Parts: sequence; structure tokens; C-alpha cells
Amino acid sequence: MLIVLKKGTTEEEMNTLLEMTGIFGLEVQKFQSDDITVLSLIGDTRKIDTDLLESLDMVECVKRVRESYDGCSRRRHPEDTVIDVSGVRIGGGSFAVMAGPCSIESYEQLLSTAKEVKNAGASVLRGGAFKPRTSPYAFQGLGDEGIRILLDVKKETGLPVITEIMSLKYLDLYSDVDIIQVGARNMQNFELLKELGKSDKTILLKRGFSNTLDELLMSAEYIVSGGNSNIILCERGIRTISTHTRNTLDLASVPALHEMTHFPVIVDPSHGCGVARYVTPLSLSAVACGADGLMLEVHDNPSLALSDGAQAITGAEFALLCEKICKIRSAIGN
Amino acid sequence: MLIVLKKGTTEEEMNTLLEMTGIFGLEVQKFQSDDITVLSLIGDTRKIDTDLLESLDMVECVKRVRESYDGCSRRRHPEDTVIDVSGVRIGGGSFAVMAGPCSIESYEQLLSTAKEVKNAGASVLRGGAFKPRTSPYAFQGLGDEGIRILLDVKKETGLPVITEIMSLKYLDLYSDVDIIQVGARNMQNFELLKELGKSDKTILLKRGFSNTLDELLMSAEYIVSGGNSNIILCERGIRTISTHTRNTLDLASVPALHEMTHFPVIVDPSHGCGVARYVTPLSLSAVACGADGLMLEVHDNPSLALSDGAQAITGAEFALLCEKICKIRSAIGN
Amino acid sequence: MLIVLKKGTTEEEMNTLLEMTGIFGLEVQKFQSDDITVLSLIGDTRKIDTDLLESLDMVECVKRVRESYDGCSRRRHPEDTVIDVSGVRIGGGSFAVMAGPCSIESYEQLLSTAKEVKNAGASVLRGGAFKPRTSPYAFQGLGDEGIRILLDVKKETGLPVITEIMSLKYLDLYSDVDIIQVGARNMQNFELLKELGKSDKTILLKRGFSNTLDELLMSAEYIVSGGNSNIILCERGIRTISTHTRNTLDLASVPALHEMTHFPVIVDPSHGCGVARYVTPLSLSAVACGADGLMLEVHDNPSLALSDGAQAITGAEFALLCEKICKIRSAIGN
Amino acid sequence: MLIVLKKGTTEEEMNTLLEMTGIFGLEVQKFQSDDITVLSLIGDTRKIDTDLLESLDMVECVKRVRESYDGCSRRRHPEDTVIDVSGVRIGGGSFAVMAGPCSIESYEQLLSTAKEVKNAGASVLRGGAFKPRTSPYAFQGLGDEGIRILLDVKKETGLPVITEIMSLKYLDLYSDVDIIQVGARNMQNFELLKELGKSDKTILLKRGFSNTLDELLMSAEYIVSGGNSNIILCERGIRTISTHTRNTLDLASVPALHEMTHFPVIVDPSHGCGVARYVTPLSLSAVACGADGLMLEVHDNPSLALSDGAQAITGAEFALLCEKICKIRSAIGN
Repeated sequence: MLIVLKKGTTEEEMNTLLEMTGIFGLEVQKFQSDDITVLSLIGDTRKIDTDLLESLDMVECVKRVRESYDGCSRRRHPEDTVIDVSGVRIGGGSFAVMAGPCSIESYEQLLSTAKEVKNAGASVLRGGAFKPRTSPYAFQGLGDEGIRILLDVKKETGLPVITEIMSLKYLDLYSDVDIIQVGARNMQNFELLKELGKSDKTILLKRGFSNTLDELLMSAEYIVSGGNSNIILCERGIRTISTHTRNTLDLASVPALHEMTHFPVIVDPSHGCGVARYVTPLSLSAVACGADGLMLEVHDNPSLALSDGAQAITGAEFALLCEKICKIRSAIGN
Repeated sequence: MLIVLKKGTTEEEMNTLLEMTGIFGLEVQKFQSDDITVLSLIGDTRKIDTDLLESLDMVECVKRVRESYDGCSRRRHPEDTVIDVSGVRIGGGSFAVMAGPCSIESYEQLLSTAKEVKNAGASVLRGGAFKPRTSPYAFQGLGDEGIRILLDVKKETGLPVITEIMSLKYLDLYSDVDIIQVGARNMQNFELLKELGKSDKTILLKRGFSNTLDELLMSAEYIVSGGNSNIILCERGIRTISTHTRNTLDLASVPALHEMTHFPVIVDPSHGCGVARYVTPLSLSAVACGADGLMLEVHDNPSLALSDGAQAITGAEFALLCEKICKIRSAIGN
Repeated sequence: MLIVLKKGTTEEEMNTLLEMTGIFGLEVQKFQSDDITVLSLIGDTRKIDTDLLESLDMVECVKRVRESYDGCSRRRHPEDTVIDVSGVRIGGGSFAVMAGPCSIESYEQLLSTAKEVKNAGASVLRGGAFKPRTSPYAFQGLGDEGIRILLDVKKETGLPVITEIMSLKYLDLYSDVDIIQVGARNMQNFELLKELGKSDKTILLKRGFSNTLDELLMSAEYIVSGGNSNIILCERGIRTISTHTRNTLDLASVPALHEMTHFPVIVDPSHGCGVARYVTPLSLSAVACGADGLMLEVHDNPSLALSDGAQAITGAEFALLCEKICKIRSAIGN
Repeated sequence: MLIVLKKGTTEEEMNTLLEMTGIFGLEVQKFQSDDITVLSLIGDTRKIDTDLLESLDMVECVKRVRESYDGCSRRRHPEDTVIDVSGVRIGGGSFAVMAGPCSIESYEQLLSTAKEVKNAGASVLRGGAFKPRTSPYAFQGLGDEGIRILLDVKKETGLPVITEIMSLKYLDLYSDVDIIQVGARNMQNFELLKELGKSDKTILLKRGFSNTLDELLMSAEYIVSGGNSNIILCERGIRTISTHTRNTLDLASVPALHEMTHFPVIVDPSHGCGVARYVTPLSLSAVACGADGLMLEVHDNPSLALSDGAQAITGAEFALLCEKICKIRSAIGN
């Protein structure tokens, strides 16, 4: 970490700084010319609060040279991490489509959708049991009954399953779930992340709808630093001034995250736009820029879906999409 | 709720719509002219997913006429709600300053700050025990030990106390805390909100850093609909394209929330800008536009604070600010 | 346009409304039930200020049923408009790559880049002569000398050319330019748009970096309503909270604009991300979601470019990209 | 400017860098330790493109130590600049209220409003003649006829006047206008700024609705570097995710700009929120945080205003507001 001091900083002022850095046991190197004084802090600077440093009168500016998310960093771990979920591989050239309804509504509904998406090419089944809804009056999901249905359909179809967790208190219900999803609203639910760091489950961590990639990786770091390195990251759109979609899918995050981290990166175009008609073109875009997978909402009668029907595509549309995905993947050389 | 249909909608298409509305037991009135067909849905439309309706081919547009946050709505409850916290009143003309350190660091630190802010005019003591930190390597707060210190200082000074909750699993620790704070990152932690709805504690609900006021009130509605109407709302800044502050304090939310809801609205300028030098001017701005209170971070040696030192003001600055607050309040007629 | 009135609106209040609508010569139809009063305004409602209506005490809400951008609207003009620029067709299934340096630096530089991009597959040459730069101290472009060089290289290579206009006073210089570009910062320079509406040149209109698609189309409407229907729209990224790119490319605008308007839509990934390494993946994404063309910055020695070197790709990278674009286009069926 | 190089940078790579800096005639100092290499560039670094530097493989990070807006900088010019407009002083402790209708509609309308606002305490009259409207079908202002009316009312009332310029071609019309306003959409219309730099008129420069303060000051620098130092800056709200107001007024920009620059800073709460009911509280907030003036839209019958009626307050409301402004100003010690 570099700290540039203002011209005219006194020895006395500098003592405050040394006291602070001393707390963290850091070594300090000093570069000085007529015009400028630069301090270089050597050691574990991850605990340093750069905002605080920048607020000091004597400080001109502060620059963190190395990222604080060591465990996620591509610098420390140059090879792609490949996640294996019951035989389905994600990352390092392997691509996976996760599909299914937003909410699990019944055994029959889920089973029929599961068979349809499996035939079309999905390798993981998604389905929500606990649903984060803006309104307390909206359908909240089937809860533990939903998880039971999901596991029954897993047994019936052989598809590994992914479903969202909303609270630590339900963690026990997820023991046979293959991938635990942390939704955008919980990306900075640090208590939840700490607990998931103790587990050995694969965690799909979605980007919060107003979070930077640095913050996403710092959240992933909560899980890694707890001991769990089975992580998939998911871009699902951010909130912007655009009004034609519910969120703005930020596809540059795919190549950017691939530079920053070794974990696989998938894209959720359904939440990323919230408009069923745009899901197919955006899915193809996500594949074209190198995503390691997709998560898609599929429902056989979107207009009667109990949640998020506006962004669900039908089984038939999904099958067509899967064909196009294959073509794009071979076009870009996979 | 009004639904405007596209010209040329067939009877068959309209059946899908009637099937949907039937599920929710709503009455439908139809207005029709050559140019336009408008359906008016009568009944409890809060469960209706307007995004889904708008996604239907036949639908031109949808407009919700009444808000879905009945329990919070000023329309239903025209009088100001006044919150009484151990004798301190907030709302309906009563103004309260909540002040203290971002993080509780020790009994001595907290006690000395508490005495200082009490003398200057604070009526509630704030102090963080469980801290939501972007990085897992940053100071996470003293935890339950912090809560104990806070309650000891409460006993010693007589000040009611407020502190943040980050997880349901610690709820028992909060039985003697006067106000439980739900932070910005947990504004849509719906499981937490549901649980707090069952309590009779006063809840301070902070606006998420990328949430609309409608969403804030829908989150408050989770608490109200659970049976708890002791709610204080808090504007603390949103994430924008501005780079001169950590967040952009959205002060129009004060008069806007006062129109929309009967609950008191306070402002947190410390998080709202993240820069100690701007805390005083923004505090005065918040008072001038009618806020019912302020929440402020005060630390005796901000440059050594274990968290958020960049935005803390000193006790001396706080005392000066309190004097100015009084003057502004009498200038605007309070 | 629909206006929903609040319960209890008096006849007197309604008179204000009728007076207003009278000014614009609109017919008013009234739908009334116990619960609700809806006014439907028939006629040319484009001049009505919906913000003003919504601010009236008696008004519950206002909903514009039809868009105000008639001349651009797909509803009025269902077929794709195909732009023909000196034999190069854009839109309606025809795809064009526009490429060249950000700034024209010399005849030699431009000619060599032009030949290179032509060989690789570009059909239009781009090059900036007047450059909009945030700082007055940054390189401002070669100005009229730059335009002369551009036209010389056009003659030499046979490539049609596109370059940006920054002020009406230079309009005469553009008589032999094939496409006049209106940059993001001038999307709402209405005096400029009005003047371009009187010309018969092809105009490439870029989306402002914080504008909605409705606003983009209203700006295009300035040109169309002046009599010029030779318009290409360009998505080039919006300003968001993301920090890993200079802008966030909003690719959902491609299918969304294709629904809203009949004009061709191209994408500028160079400005859309500002990072050369992400230009190739985002270009492929743009093609995959149906863009009618791309605009790309190519420079043979980006590190010595006089402007925007950070986002320029080399001629060799451009050639590789063009091959991949062809593959993606045949994968999606073009 | 500091450039931190990556570990393992070769001499050859560093040559590119030296070639670049050589172009700009800068001296380079080198600080090196085992861990880090820092280059410090001495000289006029304003022309350096930091994005380009950061894009180079060898570069770890770049940090500009001093701002590029020398002419505006408080560092270079520690004293407040006080603007004198025909005897009305703005800045350095002097406060001015500019008020009047959004659009000039007729001589009678403007004169009556002018008298009303003058009596209440306004010291400058505002009125729009050329109006930037999103839609080409909306009222575009009275144009040169509007300017004539404005100047007649100036003569009649003695109030200095401010009105917006939208194009260079009308510049001659503004010779008797006291303050020329550059609107938010033209903040980066650099050709216009260059021309205004040659004038000696007072320029009111509004912040663009998605621009940072650095960008605002760089735009002011276009005017200053042209030779005109009569500048007033204006905060008028930015576009954010908030939906309760048209824009989000960013009041922290007032103290922040006061630190960064010596020019006076006023606030436009009318555009800053777009809702007449919030204009009074936000005006008081602006005064409380130290603004040097206000710009307000006043209309005697807002519901019949030809533009922006939703945000206009009446003359009576304005008079009440002026009284409160005085009280707040004396409360904060002015």
C-alpha cells in the first residue's frame, strides 16, 4: 500500500500515521524528494482502512497495490478452478446450463419442467423454495415442502439441484442440495457467508444489484477464508438508470472476473433483464463473451407462474435456445 | 389496479387474464370505448405481480392506484406516529439525536464518549457490536462482549441505546437494547424482518444503498404485518455516480417519506457522505428539511478508530453541531 | 393518455384539468365507478406534460398509452429501415463494421489503419477530427485538417467514412462525409439535432451516458420530425456504479430498441467498456444479441495513441475479431 | 503523478513508458525497493491520459497527485471568488436568490412574476427563452422574442437577469443578459464552453445530471483557460435509482466544491427534485449546508405553465420561503 503525503507534513503529524501502522505490525519504507513523500507499507495491509487514511489531513492519496481478496485472486491461483457437482463440471472450459422454474409450485410442475429442461440440455435443475419477495403479501415460496419436492425430483431425474438459502436457520434442510445459492440481496449478509464458509457445499454467490466486483470478491473471500473453496460467481444485472429492463446485465464482468479470480463465472439473464423476450439474445451474448454457464428460469405457463412469470421462457423456447448456445460455443472455439 | 389492454385483444386472450385475477378473488370492472379498454381490479391487489401483467402480449400498461404498503401508509393512518424509547420521543415534532462511536472498542471508550455526547445533547447512545464489514479481514466488532459493554454504559448514563443486529441467531442478546438497528445491507433480509415483526422492540430500519422508498416501505411492511408498529426509518445515502462522497445523501426522501408514511424519519449523515468534514453541513441540511432526528458517529480520536474513522466527528465538533441544530430547529419553527 | 383521479375530486378541481386539456384541443372520455374516475384523452397528447399532470392534487396517476416518438416508432413503421451508405447497407439483416482510430493523427497513420481494417472486413472507416475531451488541456483533435485527411483516405481506399460533429458551425466541412456522428454528450444538444434534421446525411446518434431509450428515441425524433429519416442508433454504454469498466454496456438495449423502433442499432464496445482486453468478448456479445453493426477503435500502437489508447485494439486483434464475428453471425443464422 | 510498476517489469517495457512521458516533456523520478517500483512524473501532467497508462501491462496503478483544473483550484487561489452582477454579489459570504418562471410566456406574465419575486427578496430574475425539451413536440420557448421580453422586464424592474444559452449561433442575443446559463445537458458542450471563455460575461455552469465534480470543474476550466473567470457553479441534482424525485439533489457537492474551488456554488432545488412540494424543504437544506445562492422556479399558476409546472412554486410560497431562508442564514451565522 502506498501513502502519498502532502507537502509540508510535519514529523509530529507523521507520528499518528506510524502509530496506526504500528497497530497492524507493518514495515514502512519512505521515498522522499523535494516534491513528494511516498510511504510504502509492507506486510499484511488487508486490515487497513484506506478511507480512514485518506481522511487524514496530511494524506494526499492512498493506493492499495494488491487486492485484499487473496483467496479468490487469480494472482495467487493462476489456474481456473473447476467445480464438480455430482459429475457436472463448471469452469475451465466446461459449461453448464442450470434451468427450472423461479418458484417450485408442486411436484408435478417441477418434475415436468425438470424432464423438459434435461432433454433440452440442462445439466442442473433450479427451483426456488424460499423466495425473497419485496412485498410481504407476495407468494413466499413453499418453504421446506419446496425443498422436499426438489429433492424428490432430483432422485427421479438424476439432475443435481440448486436452490436459494435465505437464512441460517434453514441450513439443515440443504444437506442433500447440490448447490446452495446466495441471492443478490444476501451478497453482503456476512453472518450467512461465514457459516457457509464452514460447509463443504458448492456455493453460487450472486452479485448484489448495486455492488462492485471488488465487493463480490470480498464476499467470496468470507467463504474462502472460512475454508470452503467451492464457489461459483454469478452476474445477474445491476440497478441503473435504464428503464427498459428490470436490471442492466453487466457482461463486461465476465471477462473482468476471469482476470481477477480463478472461480467460474456464470450469468443469469432472466433476472438480468426481467423480460422473457430478451432472455434468448442475452443468453447468447453471455455465452459469446465467455461465461462458464447460464442460469435460466423456465416455466410451462409463465402467465400463471406464482413468481417472476414476466421473465420466464417456456420449455419450447428453452430447447431452441440450447441449440443456439451449442452453435455459439463452437463458433467461439469450445 | 388498472390494466389497459391493447387494441384488438381477443376474448380468448382476455380469459387468461380473468383466470389470473380469479386466483386472487378480485372483482373486475371494464371500461370500453372505440379506442381503449381499461380493466379496473377491485379487491386486495397486493398479491398481483404487475411485472407479469405487463409482460402479457395483450397488455398495454398496468398502473397500481393504491400503494401495497397499507400498514405504513399515511393514507390509512394520517397522524404522525410518535415513537417513545424509554421516555425519549421521536416523531410528531419531537427530535432526537443518536450519537456514539461506529464500533464499541472498550468500556472506557464508550463510557467517555457517552458522557460527552449526553452533555452535548444526544438523547440516545449508538455503538456497534456486530459490524458488517466488506472484508473478512477487517475488524468485525466485539460481538456479544460489545453488547454487554453497551448495556453497562446504558445503566451508568441512563441513555437508551441503539445497536445493529446482523443475524437472527443473536436476537436473544438484544432484550435490553432499546432500539434494534437493521442496517442498509439487511433492508431486504426478509427472514430477519419477519422475526423482528414478532417482537415489540423499536426497530430502526435503514434504507438500502440502492433501494427506492417504495421498497423501504415494503420492508417496513414486513415488520408491521408481523404485528410490530414501532418503526423508525432512516435515510443514509444511496450509491450513485458521485465520487466525492461514499454515498449520496438523498434528502428529498425526508419530505417524500413524510407524505407516504406516518413513521418518523431520521437521517444518518455520517454514512450518508463518509467524510467527517461534510457531516456538520449535511446534518444541518437534514434538520432544515424536516428530519425527526439524526444518527451520528462520534469518536474521540477518529484517526485511531477501529472502523469508519473517516466519517467520525470528535466530541468537540459534535457539541458545536448540537448548538447549531438547536438554532436551525428554532429557525424552522420547532 | 389516461388520467386517474383521486376519490373525492370536485367538479371545480376538474375544471382546471379541462382547461389544460382544452389548450391542446383534446377530446376527453370519462369512465366512472364508485371507486375510481378515469379520464381518457383522445388526440395528439404529445405536447402534454405528464409530470405536471401528476403533480396536481386531484390526480392519482397518469399513464401515457402510446409513445411520443411517432416517427421512430415500430408501431407506425413495422418494417426495418435499411440504411444505405454509398453502397454499404446497415439494418434489416445487413451488418456493418465501422473501424479506425479514435483520433486522426496524420495521413499516413489513417491510411495505414484504413487499409488494415478494410482487408480485415470493415466496411466503414471511422476517425475523429473534432474530439470532445473532458479536459481543455487534452489533445482536441486535428479539426478541419483532420476532416481533410479523412476525405483523402476515403478517396484512396473507397471506404465510406464516419466522423463526429461537435458544433453547427463546422457543418459545412461535413458535406463529403458519409455518416455524421452525434456523440453521447450531444445526444440532447437539441439545436444541433434540429439542424441535422434539415440535412439528408445519414446520422449516427449515440445514446447519452445517462439517458433512457425513450430519451434516445425522442432525440432521434428531433431529426425525423425535421425531415431526415437516415438514422442509425448506437448503444455505447451507460454510467453506473460498476468500476471495472469506464461505462457499462447495456446490451438489452439492442433487442429493446429493435422492438421500439425500425432504425438499425449498432454497438460501440470500445467506449462501452474502455478496456481493450474486453473489446473482443463484448463485440461478440453484441453480435450474438442481434446488433446491426459495430463501431470499433483500432490503433497500431495503442500505447502512443493521442486519445483513448486504453480502449483501442491493434489491427491484428481486429482481424481475428472479424473472423469470430463471421462465425457468430452464421451461428445465429445470418 | 505516480506510476507504480508491476514486479518484474523489464527495461524494454519501461522504454515505452519513457517514450510516452518524453512526448510531454516530463521529468521522471524513480523510487525502487525489492518489492515495488514507483515513478514520479514532474512537470505539466495535465495532458497525460491516465486511463491509457493504467491499461499498460507493466503498470500496477496510477495516481494523479494534483488536480488538472488549475484555474478553478482552491489550492492555487485560496480566497473565495466573489461574483458581482450589476451590483448583486454572490460568493464569499454574499447570498443571492435567482427566481422566475421556467419559461417566459409573455411580457405581462414575466413582469408580474418579476415584481413579486423582487418584493419577496430575489435579487436576480430568471426566465427561459430557449428551452431544452426532451420532445420536439413540447413547447420550445419563445426564442429571441423571449430574450427581448426578459430585457424589457430587466429595464422595468432593475433586476439583473439570467437565461440559458443553447447554441453559439444565438450568442449575439445575450449581450445585455447579466448571467448566461449553461444547462446540465450542455455542461460538456465543449465548443460552447470555449466560446464563452472568450466572453467576459458571468457564466452559470450547471452540473450535468450524470457528471462528477471533477468533470464539472474540468468544464469550468474550459471557460477559465479561455480567459473568463466569472463563473458560478450550480448543483441541480443527478440521475439515480431514486424514483420519488426527478433527480437526486446531491447537497454534499456544496461543501465539497467549496473545498475544491474558489468559485461560488448555488443550488437549484426546482430541477433538483422536480416536485413543487419538496422545493421549500430542499431550499432550506441548501442554505443550511452553505450554498452561496439558490435558483428557483416561480409561476403564478403552475398548473397552466407551459413547461415544468410540476416543480414551480407560487409567488406566495416563494415569499414564505424567503423569510425562512433569512432565518436559516442567521441561524448558521450569516
